Amino acid sequence: MREVRLSIFGFGNVGRALAGVLLEKEPFFRERYGLDFRVVSVADTSGLVWLPEGIDLREALLVKENFGKLSAWTNDYEVYSLRPEEAVREIEADLVVDVTGDMRAHVWHLEALKEGKGVVTSNKPPLAFHYSELVGEAERRELPYLFEATVMAGTPVIALLRENLLGDTVEGIEAVLNATTTFILSRMEEGMTFEEALRKAQEMGIAERDPTADVLGMDAGYKATILHCVAFHPLTFGEASVRGITGVTPEEIERARGRGNTVRLVASIREGSVTVEPKEVSGESPLAVKSYENVAIIKTDLLGELVIKGSGAGLKETASGGVGDIVKASLQLPKG
Amino acid sequence: MREVRLSIFGFGNVGRALAGVLLEKEPFFRERYGLDFRVVSVADTSGLVWLPEGIDLREALLVKENFGKLSAWTNDYEVYSLRPEEAVREIEADLVVDVTGDMRAHVWHLEALKEGKGVVTSNKPPLAFHYSELVGEAERRELPYLFEATVMAGTPVIALLRENLLGDTVEGIEAVLNATTTFILSRMEEGMTFEEALRKAQEMGIAERDPTADVLGMDAGYKATILHCVAFHPLTFGEASVRGITGVTPEEIERARGRGNTVRLVASIREGSVTVEPKEVSGESPLAVKSYENVAIIKTDLLGELVIKGSGAGLKETASGGVGDIVKASLQLPKG
Repeated sequence: MREVRLSIFGFGNVGRALAGVLLEKEPFFRERYGLDFRVVSVADTSGLVWLPEGIDLREALLVKENFGKLSAWTNDYEVYSLRPEEAVREIEADLVVDVTGDMRAHVWHLEALKEGKGVVTSNKPPLAFHYSELVGEAERRELPYLFEATVMAGTPVIALLRENLLGDTVEGIEAVLNATTTFILSRMEEGMTFEEALRKAQEMGIAERDPTADVLGMDAGYKATILHCVAFHPLTFGEASVRGITGVTPEEIERARGRGNTVRLVASIREGSVTVEPKEVSGESPLAVKSYENVAIIKTDLLGELVIKGSGAGLKETASGGVGDIVKASLQLPKG
Repeated sequence: MREVRLSIFGFGNVGRALAGVLLEKEPFFRERYGLDFRVVSVADTSGLVWLPEGIDLREALLVKENFGKLSAWTNDYEVYSLRPEEAVREIEADLVVDVTGDMRAHVWHLEALKEGKGVVTSNKPPLAFHYSELVGEAERRELPYLFEATVMAGTPVIALLRENLLGDTVEGIEAVLNATTTFILSRMEEGMTFEEALRKAQEMGIAERDPTADVLGMDAGYKATILHCVAFHPLTFGEASVRGITGVTPEEIERARGRGNTVRLVASIREGSVTVEPKEVSGESPLAVKSYENVAIIKTDLLGELVIKGSGAGLKETASGGVGDIVKASLQLPKG
């Protein structure tokens, strides 16, 4: 049995789903991989709980659920107000897990790597802005730096491009990478206006409270940028050309429907170019996804066309990517 | 630059396609991975050509093309009549590449592993009958034993199940894994009888000269058995329940069409059970593949439903799997 110490940053919806999976599937990880996860710290924006002997995740989840913040947890545990940069230095851990939305997280990812810790992240901006620096540092130090959950939740498109198809040269990728926009466009097909569809998405908890990043195409743009980095070479979100769905009119959608087509927010990735924009796609195309599905069509010189389609959103679905990476990173960590 | 010595067994259509890719993409492998492949032996059923300094693949391809057999190549090269069991012992190589259809190849795969050599194979029976022994031996010796090209050509469904989704528990797989039967069933939809469609497939070079393994479902059965081994636990082809498409009638296909459905040879894989049989599937289902596509729908506890679809046949497409595995295995080989 191998013990792996995890330091988790972020205890929002995804962080809690991930903690839930670590808890529920403990016997599975022990039996299948000989891995025993010990969570030595958990942090949300209110504070950081740190216990080298291991935190009771069941209790952590209860505290968060009942009091809304980890800092409320004062009877058995110390609550610290360390910044992540400090925490990744001070806390002894094998893996740092980032399930925050911290735009500046690259700073502490780098710090963690310099401290000899592997990193698993579902947080997109570090990759979309600092891919080269982060992945380069991890490679130099031979440490895992894994980010499957940043794109298409747990659907393993990153691993597919990063660790497979190694004999192929990727020629291009077309993908639908944001579920909120698919939801809104689908409701508009049923006759709602953009505003009504957006409100519906928010009511149903599909769109974020601040849906700007989704509807303006930034979320899809981050993801498309990351796919470009993996499939071709590092570039940053600033080089991507992004147009969201706020300008899509009911008339446009109706005209597409008349032709048997549908409008989706499509990412087109070629070497040196990332474009995200609403596009009319054939109803027969794999890009005509429904509900929470994301899809990527990967074209290569040898294999031709490969389609991978799966959940692109959802808590369990995103936790799948994070937990899968935690297992993979644990199996890659230097022994002893 | 790292030199990797390859010993290739099989120089039929797939073997030659693989050699062609190694040759054409030599600069790509050097630049991208720092890998320099030296082919130290190539064998077909006529004999084995062995040159420790490395064989000129261009010449080997020309000889095979012009004379139909490697044993015709006598001016510069020695032709040996070693059996594979002997060859994997005597020839110094880092990787043994099996692109034969040898039913007994597990014997020399095991021998190669015992000699400290990694194995890459597109040959199905060794896996479908001896998975546990082969993968167990490779794991004990910490040597790569890779077989992506055995299922869905280069479409990386094996890697997806073997190296990814590590936090997920697979619940079941439904797949279409044989392109010849899809071709025949599609022609029958257009009004041909089974015999006419089969003859057409043979004329077009889609079906093997002996199409028995395809139409009786054995090829799909081998592949489904391998998927079961990877997703659940090792079992052998003898435990699979297989029914081919020879009994499918034009009337059955016509009735399905009337309901908007289509008949495909579907593999259903659950823990402890592998079934391959013709099934009526909705025209909307990912299983309603066309032409050379293969597809697998993987259901898991966390991610839900994941679809991977791509070429399931073709020479370049199968070479993609083999060459990708050669690169992956090379990067995994113990250093020095």
